[in-house]
Amino acid sequence: MHILVTGAAGFIGSHTVLELLQSGYTVLCIDNFANAISDEHGNAISLKRVAEITGKEVPFQNVDVCDEKALEKVFAENKFDGVIHLAALKAVGESVAKPLQYYSNNLVASLNLIQMCLKYNVKNFVFSSSATVYGPPAELPITENSPTGQGITNPYGQTKYMMEQILIDVGKANPEWNVILLRYFNPVGAHKSGLIGEDPKGVPNNLMPYVSQVAIGKLPVLTIYGDKFDTVDGTGVRDYIHVVDLAKGHVKAFDRIQNVGNVGTEIYNLGTGVGYSVRQMVDALKKVSGKDIPVKIGVPRPGDVASVYCDPSLAQEKLGWKAENGLEEMCADLWNWQTKNPQGFAA
Amino acid sequence: MHILVTGAAGFIGSHTVLELLQSGYTVLCIDNFANAISDEHGNAISLKRVAEITGKEVPFQNVDVCDEKALEKVFAENKFDGVIHLAALKAVGESVAKPLQYYSNNLVASLNLIQMCLKYNVKNFVFSSSATVYGPPAELPITENSPTGQGITNPYGQTKYMMEQILIDVGKANPEWNVILLRYFNPVGAHKSGLIGEDPKGVPNNLMPYVSQVAIGKLPVLTIYGDKFDTVDGTGVRDYIHVVDLAKGHVKAFDRIQNVGNVGTEIYNLGTGVGYSVRQMVDALKKVSGKDIPVKIGVPRPGDVASVYCDPSLAQEKLGWKAENGLEEMCADLWNWQTKNPQGFAA
Repeated sequence: MHILVTGAAGFIGSHTVLELLQSGYTVLCIDNFANAISDEHGNAISLKRVAEITGKEVPFQNVDVCDEKALEKVFAENKFDGVIHLAALKAVGESVAKPLQYYSNNLVASLNLIQMCLKYNVKNFVFSSSATVYGPPAELPITENSPTGQGITNPYGQTKYMMEQILIDVGKANPEWNVILLRYFNPVGAHKSGLIGEDPKGVPNNLMPYVSQVAIGKLPVLTIYGDKFDTVDGTGVRDYIHVVDLAKGHVKAFDRIQNVGNVGTEIYNLGTGVGYSVRQMVDALKKVSGKDIPVKIGVPRPGDVASVYCDPSLAQEKLGWKAENGLEEMCADLWNWQTKNPQGFAA
Repeated sequence: MHILVTGAAGFIGSHTVLELLQSGYTVLCIDNFANAISDEHGNAISLKRVAEITGKEVPFQNVDVCDEKALEKVFAENKFDGVIHLAALKAVGESVAKPLQYYSNNLVASLNLIQMCLKYNVKNFVFSSSATVYGPPAELPITENSPTGQGITNPYGQTKYMMEQILIDVGKANPEWNVILLRYFNPVGAHKSGLIGEDPKGVPNNLMPYVSQVAIGKLPVLTIYGDKFDTVDGTGVRDYIHVVDLAKGHVKAFDRIQNVGNVGTEIYNLGTGVGYSVRQMVDALKKVSGKDIPVKIGVPRPGDVASVYCDPSLAQEKLGWKAENGLEEMCADLWNWQTKNPQGFAA
């Protein structure tokens, strides 16, 4: 199968492309470098590294999915069997400050892509959704049947929820489509090679890139937002998942479409099912790195909840997918990437 | 205040423009004739009638709000104090069959309009929302604090819910904005003059235009979808509101902004608070028209619920607004419009 991957140069994109190639899929990668780094020729550094790791060509075009004409050119010049739609603005805090930018970018990109899939008869659509669609969980673990859409505290999360709803309705109206919504929990880690990993622009928004930048001395101290939650040590608990496991989930989604045929619309949690606290994550990276990681305690951020973790058993049952990497691999692989690329891809 | 009204040539738009003009507001009307009727010169027949009724000019431009360039021209050439955003595709059944068309049109139009308001510093935004955002009500009457977004059964309703969410977030990020979300219940009736009214293209999707077309002999029989609901007579109960009352709600929203200043984001139910059943509505039109209205009983449609009606007291308290017309006026004015315009505006 030939897969169009949007947002392919990003953290999840680059790892997903790698796993697709290693499983015999071919890809066309597009990205507009909103979150990824290009070299001086306008190519994606992360995807050049993927080519290096896999020994395969990684076709790439600098295309903004919001640019309808540019996107149509991609569809007119290629014949895709499916798309993986990862392209999105993703900074939670920024989305609160600039809601229109987030809604416009994330919704228009997705609407354009669906439009092209309808026009060019591409019926297999895998979407990068998020645990954020569940809002504050009423019960744990979160299953795919847990309620969604209530109590989402930021526009980023709303765009994910809205896109799910739009894709569900498009799937209903086009029963020959296969729509697979993958709800990511908290992706961390990096590929074993240390050649690709998470390279946030500016100060990291997510915990583990922040922690590893403190460990390596790029940032002075980690602020832990709240240590009075009802958890093992008072700090927030999340379901961290190794990015390579997450990437493999996308491959399994397309494997399922190939093996089963018309599956309709399906939704899967991609997490480990195990929650770790902020302190547990920090301690694990401290152990792996041998570095001191200074922390201070701040107040909880609006919308933060004590614990979020999922029941990933549906993905195991239907996709034959299960996270294989635990806390130690997540931290070891993150640290390997961080130390090999102290300045990220740009260095 | 000078108000841009989108979707101005439609049923609610034309009545709203009339009330705005009669309350001393000036307007620019835009519409793309997705739901309204143009004359041979490309003008809106409904708005020419509004000019006739009010004796005032009703400036109109044929503009699709989805057309970013055309919309920007409107903002560049005018100075608005506020917008009323009514333009939308609105056929529930069609939205299920063509979800992408509904999401694209309704979302992109709204995103474009918000973008222009931000760019041209227009801070007063009144949005045409709908009771459909509540989904099947858990308790009656529905207040503005009743839950929204759960159990909405069609893309049309989803677009209204999504637009509310987007506007709420834009309002949060721009505290100097006034965002007023008006949740319409079931608008019916027509202006007393009988010169403007509801003129659906094709077979009506809503009850009362259908009933009046049966009464006048254009349609043979009314199908009532379900007569075993837990209501006064087994048929579904809804909160019908006279369109002139609804239109006045928009004027009151702008009056409030003028009188109070920065109100932030506010949400109001616009209904009477009284529910009538399908049979009660049919009987009332039968009485007013003196015509026979044949009915047959069909099965309930997916998503139909027994009763929906609101508590409109917040609008009374804050806007000083209350529906003044009852069932009899709704039917008398509808029948007056129907008999004066048996073929709608086109005749």
